[in-house]
Amino acid sequence: LTLPDTTRISSAASTGDCVRAVEWSDAALKLLDQRLLPGEERYLALHDAPAVANAIRDMVVRGAPAIGIAAAYGVVLAVRAGVVRHGAQWRSLIEPDLALLSSARPTAVNLAWAVERMRRAVAAAPDSDPESLLLAEARAIHDEDIAANRRMGELGAALIASGSGVLTHCNTGSLATGGFGTALGVIRAAHGAGRIRDIYADETRPWLQGARLTAWELMRDGIPVTLIADSAASLLMQRGRVQWVIVGADRIAANGDTANKIGTYQLAVSARHHGVKFMVVAPTSTIDFATETGAGIAIEERSGVEVTKFGACRAAPPDVQAWNPAFDVTPATLIDAIVTEKGVVPRPDPKNLAALR
Amino acid sequence: LTLPDTTRISSAASTGDCVRAVEWSDAALKLLDQRLLPGEERYLALHDAPAVANAIRDMVVRGAPAIGIAAAYGVVLAVRAGVVRHGAQWRSLIEPDLALLSSARPTAVNLAWAVERMRRAVAAAPDSDPESLLLAEARAIHDEDIAANRRMGELGAALIASGSGVLTHCNTGSLATGGFGTALGVIRAAHGAGRIRDIYADETRPWLQGARLTAWELMRDGIPVTLIADSAASLLMQRGRVQWVIVGADRIAANGDTANKIGTYQLAVSARHHGVKFMVVAPTSTIDFATETGAGIAIEERSGVEVTKFGACRAAPPDVQAWNPAFDVTPATLIDAIVTEKGVVPRPDPKNLAALR
Repeated sequence: LTLPDTTRISSAASTGDCVRAVEWSDAALKLLDQRLLPGEERYLALHDAPAVANAIRDMVVRGAPAIGIAAAYGVVLAVRAGVVRHGAQWRSLIEPDLALLSSARPTAVNLAWAVERMRRAVAAAPDSDPESLLLAEARAIHDEDIAANRRMGELGAALIASGSGVLTHCNTGSLATGGFGTALGVIRAAHGAGRIRDIYADETRPWLQGARLTAWELMRDGIPVTLIADSAASLLMQRGRVQWVIVGADRIAANGDTANKIGTYQLAVSARHHGVKFMVVAPTSTIDFATETGAGIAIEERSGVEVTKFGACRAAPPDVQAWNPAFDVTPATLIDAIVTEKGVVPRPDPKNLAALR
Repeated sequence: LTLPDTTRISSAASTGDCVRAVEWSDAALKLLDQRLLPGEERYLALHDAPAVANAIRDMVVRGAPAIGIAAAYGVVLAVRAGVVRHGAQWRSLIEPDLALLSSARPTAVNLAWAVERMRRAVAAAPDSDPESLLLAEARAIHDEDIAANRRMGELGAALIASGSGVLTHCNTGSLATGGFGTALGVIRAAHGAGRIRDIYADETRPWLQGARLTAWELMRDGIPVTLIADSAASLLMQRGRVQWVIVGADRIAANGDTANKIGTYQLAVSARHHGVKFMVVAPTSTIDFATETGAGIAIEERSGVEVTKFGACRAAPPDVQAWNPAFDVTPATLIDAIVTEKGVVPRPDPKNLAALR
């Protein structure tokens, strides 16, 4: 576990961070509908837990930390519904909602982690008027995520030499978290500290998180970015344009194997081939110490329609068969550093990761 | 140079091959407009050489062998226009058209090769009624391409063990050639010989040749195919689902370095990491002996709009910057075999490639 010198980075906190994907307001959960970006900016107001679970499953909200935060607020809505229907016996009614929330998507561990933490708040809550305590816990999860992201931003940025080019995958910014971002938070902080020459975002097929979300978020914050097709990443590395590939994580096994958006593994293989460094940025809530290696991580497979259509446009013949794994696992041996809010783990293995428990 | 035993492959010639992208009929050049596939199947009739050059540049027709063949027919149209305007002095008028044709796209060498071969026919043609001789030469280029593809199909298929999974990139089939295909011709032949367990095609962003063209062509011919996002290729290899990556080529340098559709290099890097074999299939007209290594090959960069949009669908915010290299160069060291119509070159280098001259 290392703690780099971040004294020249902390000014980066002032870098623009204008977007919030998850907000609690007017006693409802507001989610920015990320399926519609960048064409349309529309917030949905959700009033019960099943609606939150559906929004997570249908990717209205996505990104491991953001779906954990959304689920935490979803627990608040579940408890409210329990109180309305059953008064002081509200606890007897909430279990189906909690199960719905924690199983809405399978790969990211933050979802189960957030619901588990809210369960402890449920146990500690009073029989009457429990909502304020539960809302405070959900807000704490949200606020701690932003604070963790800012800390990871400082720690990760300190690893990046001045004048570096960086490539990121998927969206790991404010849209994927409570705010600021994980991998994109590091890039945001390093940009703020003047260390970045060029930021490249790959488009991240099939869901186009890079093209639709990362490009949008960075442009919104006034940070220059160049978009590339996923398959141009190796040419970029061959030409020496990037020194770091920086990605988030959906679940990190106890040995450092990292599940993340499909394509992450391909970038890690190519980065190693080219001597480009590979950084994973994730809060410690993403580490699943109960899972020994990546082999134990369930990989969600989503509908092939995400591949055969391009946004609303058809990209392939009707009825073509498609395989659409949503994640892959990058072995720890291909990772140069895992950056968490508690410190940096260089060349992760079961021993140095365990120091974060 | 090796010539594998193809006795058990040649039956593959009976495998369906229903599509023709380039046809001469009714004294005009008919091109299947590949920008509209798979949604619409429309042939354009072209009557002069500048229209053919535009069609090549705008990717109505694409694929290194197909654009060479289209340009050869384009020379016939140039000569016809010269005769109409200048009678027996037609030669004095055709040079601008020939220059337009051979410079319509920069990376594939087949284009310049075909125009150069037609120039020799121009030199040999009679002053009056030259068209029939030139049309015969263009038809010969076309027919020889199909014959070369069938031969490469036999030679390449003989390298593939029964029960193999294969992954291909871009479109290298009948749509990209005179007919049958290069890399897809090998897959077609190996499928016909019963050697293939699974065929995977990656979608090949940004132009989606895999999703739009390869999937369409294989389904049209009744050959089962599974489409994947480009970035899922490494997971496919990690899971042992493919034993060969099989691709075409736009230009092969004298040392075996191979320029091909963007993303080819990334597949080659990943294939080597996973011990998956990597095969390049291209007629000898693709080999540019005048270019020593891949460093000498011009890589076409196309408009970023291909990355930020597809058809009517916007994939990224307006005005986002994008980098869109259309090709990359795979070093010979990552190639296990180059299959040509004259034989197979294993582990290509300047010496064994020179045997094809």
